[in-house]
Amino acid sequence: MENPFTDEYFMRKALQEAEAAYGKGEIPVGAVIVVDNKIIARSHNLTEMLHDVTAHAEMQSVTAAANFLGGKYLKGCTLYVTLEPCQMCAGALYWSQISKIVYGADDDHRGYRTMGGRLHPKTEVVSGVMAGEAGELIRRFFAERRK
Amino acid sequence: MENPFTDEYFMRKALQEAEAAYGKGEIPVGAVIVVDNKIIARSHNLTEMLHDVTAHAEMQSVTAAANFLGGKYLKGCTLYVTLEPCQMCAGALYWSQISKIVYGADDDHRGYRTMGGRLHPKTEVVSGVMAGEAGELIRRFFAERRK
Repeated sequence: MENPFTDEYFMRKALQEAEAAYGKGEIPVGAVIVVDNKIIARSHNLTEMLHDVTAHAEMQSVTAAANFLGGKYLKGCTLYVTLEPCQMCAGALYWSQISKIVYGADDDHRGYRTMGGRLHPKTEVVSGVMAGEAGELIRRFFAERRK
Repeated sequence: MENPFTDEYFMRKALQEAEAAYGKGEIPVGAVIVVDNKIIARSHNLTEMLHDVTAHAEMQSVTAAANFLGGKYLKGCTLYVTLEPCQMCAGALYWSQISKIVYGADDDHRGYRTMGGRLHPKTEVVSGVMAGEAGELIRRFFAERRK
């Protein structure tokens, strides 16, 4: 039997979170954190609603996953996030020593690769998973805002 | 009359926060955010107590100050923090567009300058204010832990 728990499977869950953000007028970025094929955290960007620049999807999921696990390190965990993390989120992920990060669309302007942030050397990174869907959602959001 | 609200005055408040962290077994870093000579946020590192890598002093103060102001941008605000911010905190401060950052001791290992993080171009930075006291508190903390 084929394994249903592919990177695409979990990225689709992160995309559902991004769509929830979209529906609230937030820049549509969503995230889930997975351990042993189980989702232990899910979140979406809430910076506008909370008036808080730290309320990125990744930050909320890092806090929620650590709370679930009862410890601050996310070894054995995988983060799925629809957009390349910014330097703030890369920094949080660095401190968490998370095992794997899978992200969708690149963020050539504010992503950690451009801004100069650094992930933990033990963290594996996979990019481009469902990047088309993730990027299209963000483009649609900003196109509507410009109207 | 001499202005009592010097950088040293507010850094001393941040150092009191760092001492509170020390008393809880947390790496002793403290912060305050000031607007018009008024402290609108004060916090200290709580990563151990909260099991949360995102609970750095700066992150908490950014959230608290934005909550106080009712908006996510910290224009006109000054952050006083006893240690050079890490890349996560630099990222949060970048997004907040805070006007000024005053920090105490350099962090040559995990500070944003070493890790490659970037502050907002509009943010003024002053370093080395009461650096001796701030650094000594951290050295004492780690010396005691090694015992």
